[in-house]
Amino acid sequence: MIPDLSQTICAIASPPGTGAIAVVRISGPQTHSVLNNIFVSRTKSEQYPEARRAYYGEISTNGKILDDVVVLFFKSPASYTGEDAAEIYCHGSQFIQNRLLQILAENGARMAAPGEFSLRAFVNGKLDLMQAEGVDDLIRSRNPMAHALAVKQMRGDFSARLRELRQQLIDLTALLELEIDFSEEDVQFADRSRLLETCKALQNEVVLLSESFKAGNVLKHGIPVAIIGEPNVGKSTLLNRILNEERSIVSEIPGTTRDFIEDNFNVGNITYRFIDTAGLRNTSDLIESAGVERTLVKASEASIILLLFDAADCENDRILSGIESLKSQVADFADKKLIVVINKIDLLVNAPKHLRELLDHDLVFLSAKRNENIEELMQKLTDAVQISENTPDIVLTNVRHYDAFLTISSLLSQAVQHIEGGLPQDLTASFLHQALHHIGLVTGEVSNEDVLGSVFSRFCIGK
Amino acid sequence: MIPDLSQTICAIASPPGTGAIAVVRISGPQTHSVLNNIFVSRTKSEQYPEARRAYYGEISTNGKILDDVVVLFFKSPASYTGEDAAEIYCHGSQFIQNRLLQILAENGARMAAPGEFSLRAFVNGKLDLMQAEGVDDLIRSRNPMAHALAVKQMRGDFSARLRELRQQLIDLTALLELEIDFSEEDVQFADRSRLLETCKALQNEVVLLSESFKAGNVLKHGIPVAIIGEPNVGKSTLLNRILNEERSIVSEIPGTTRDFIEDNFNVGNITYRFIDTAGLRNTSDLIESAGVERTLVKASEASIILLLFDAADCENDRILSGIESLKSQVADFADKKLIVVINKIDLLVNAPKHLRELLDHDLVFLSAKRNENIEELMQKLTDAVQISENTPDIVLTNVRHYDAFLTISSLLSQAVQHIEGGLPQDLTASFLHQALHHIGLVTGEVSNEDVLGSVFSRFCIGK
Repeated sequence: MIPDLSQTICAIASPPGTGAIAVVRISGPQTHSVLNNIFVSRTKSEQYPEARRAYYGEISTNGKILDDVVVLFFKSPASYTGEDAAEIYCHGSQFIQNRLLQILAENGARMAAPGEFSLRAFVNGKLDLMQAEGVDDLIRSRNPMAHALAVKQMRGDFSARLRELRQQLIDLTALLELEIDFSEEDVQFADRSRLLETCKALQNEVVLLSESFKAGNVLKHGIPVAIIGEPNVGKSTLLNRILNEERSIVSEIPGTTRDFIEDNFNVGNITYRFIDTAGLRNTSDLIESAGVERTLVKASEASIILLLFDAADCENDRILSGIESLKSQVADFADKKLIVVINKIDLLVNAPKHLRELLDHDLVFLSAKRNENIEELMQKLTDAVQISENTPDIVLTNVRHYDAFLTISSLLSQAVQHIEGGLPQDLTASFLHQALHHIGLVTGEVSNEDVLGSVFSRFCIGK
Repeated sequence: MIPDLSQTICAIASPPGTGAIAVVRISGPQTHSVLNNIFVSRTKSEQYPEARRAYYGEISTNGKILDDVVVLFFKSPASYTGEDAAEIYCHGSQFIQNRLLQILAENGARMAAPGEFSLRAFVNGKLDLMQAEGVDDLIRSRNPMAHALAVKQMRGDFSARLRELRQQLIDLTALLELEIDFSEEDVQFADRSRLLETCKALQNEVVLLSESFKAGNVLKHGIPVAIIGEPNVGKSTLLNRILNEERSIVSEIPGTTRDFIEDNFNVGNITYRFIDTAGLRNTSDLIESAGVERTLVKASEASIILLLFDAADCENDRILSGIESLKSQVADFADKKLIVVINKIDLLVNAPKHLRELLDHDLVFLSAKRNENIEELMQKLTDAVQISENTPDIVLTNVRHYDAFLTISSLLSQAVQHIEGGLPQDLTASFLHQALHHIGLVTGEVSNEDVLGSVFSRFCIGK
């Protein structure tokens, strides 16, 4: 996985397909010689090729002009990869993009592997591993929160925090090791209670970071919401209403929405991931219903359950027994937020009396069809998440980081036990050393082929 | 359709979707002020914002960082549109692209209409109408010939030729009008026979250009090829074989093929467009077969017909009657190239004797399954097209141009008749004036809202 930096790589960096402009990226020591073979600048410049200067000209090979393009040169180390690099902005036809790659290949550049530009940036010290992962997250981000977290990670906020953690660990370990060196003299450089305090504080911080993973993952991938109810209570109408709300927001500016995911919707800064469920024949008799098992599994995956009733045929008992039935069937029901929705209020004959007092759960009366009181439901959804408007400073969103932090947490917890038990310092020091190693794996200060391979192979081509 | 040039426009110029890098384009007088609001350069530069210089920095709004980007500024008139303009190279997430457009809109740029950048380039005299159309053709080009023609058109080769034609017409008209001015003095400034000769030569040229349209259209959209034969003679296997040949060429460089059109294939420089046909039950009894009508219509649309037989059960009579039947059923059969293909030669029991002598048509024995002798078929396909390797200098590919040239040709033909008939010069001059008008419509020297509307609305967003 460690790249051969003597090779020059190229790739299409813009999204696949046809457009007005496509971007082809080149990086490596032969960047200039490759471009010298195929590019003639029509922009007059005495210092050609000057870095960060746009040159307009033509790409041609064997006397045939491929395209009029703009080329930007970057000079090592002031480039994304840290190498000599260039970007070609050509017309975005499939034919030109493919042919340009062929021409580059014929002139000494090879196709880049996925993530290879970022891998080179990492190897050349332009980005640490977490920052590189932040870049990839940024490209994949679909909602404001995921985006904000990725920006912070890319810009190194998380790395800076880890450097602090790391420094505290190093200080701690240094103290312990000093004791070990002088152990025969029975000197205690490290005040036991201070040592213990520092170690616990550190572990506490690591645990908090680990715990932020759940929230981080939700921010990144969306909060799962299941809509459950008997057939014809208006589940689809409600979903369409919610999705339309979202859509009308997004499409205020024409042309901005180009890749809409039908089943995700944003409310405020949060992405909700809708879980489709089969309509339940009879919510008070879940076991007998067809498709119940699947629905129950889906409901178990959700963080929020919307339990829908038709206003025209609902009564207190029916609603209460429906909730009880759900409670008894859905795994980890206590962890979930239940919102009871009474739909079709326009058809409401007898308002269920005292229902609100009978319920421990949120209750919304609305008409999906007539678009009445949808805002109240949206507000309940937002309240249910209770994530503050401001992104927490540091949130774990990456399963690789999460795994490392679980390990670090466990190592620190063992270190605490050893200090408390007055056990030999060298073992305690060894736990701290291992924790340092795992922090290093997260930032990439310690790296191995496997980690690099799994991190960068997930990247898209051209990044 | 004439744009309000006081407005500043923006659009995503890279292909739709997610990628490493996306390109957002801005053009108009507020380009710099819009970017001043949202972009902070981290590249130090005393002359900021200097044209054609890449600035690395961040886009932010309301204190929130959206992305780290590179921005290129262009100063009027040295830009694609001729206006102050900029390109922002941001990370290619959907979220960032959409949000960036929103931010630009909030800061005074509006979403560009399709083709609006090119329309502005036209209005500002950076491109004539044919060149603008060439840019659009270039983006849509799918094969080397279409691409080469579009490059020539974009770079103005066609426009230059039209300027020559136009100048000849102007000279001719001037001579005629001089006569009209002095008509009472009965002076003939224009030598009748020279006038006639020039006019005929001009018309000849226009006719040749009009005739190039058929070839041009074929180059642009592919040559229609129908594969016809009874079920199980191996039509699909043959098509797959042909497509695979093509695919293996394209995919020599991994990652180059990203939007493959299943039913188009390139052989050499030519695109062939495969026409799917239902298998004919019995080629010697076309009328009774099911799906025959559809197959016949398809065959009538084709320029080349491959008539397939199974070697195991073919005999001279069967093949000859199959051809006769096709001939009598397919419209304009005489204009088409028929290639008779005997497939499954590995199963050949009795080679049809003297078949080659009996046929007026090309004949290929092959095995699609075993990949035997496919090259001969490919060669026959190439021969059938007989378009020289070198793109003709000027070829009409645009139906708008074609229509104009038919009109011009008719006007010149009327002018010739008038000169030959010794009819009044003022009528002749009027025909030439009209021809001039139509040449002007092609290049855009004469323009009207309708023409501009129909030309630019077909463009993609961001171009």
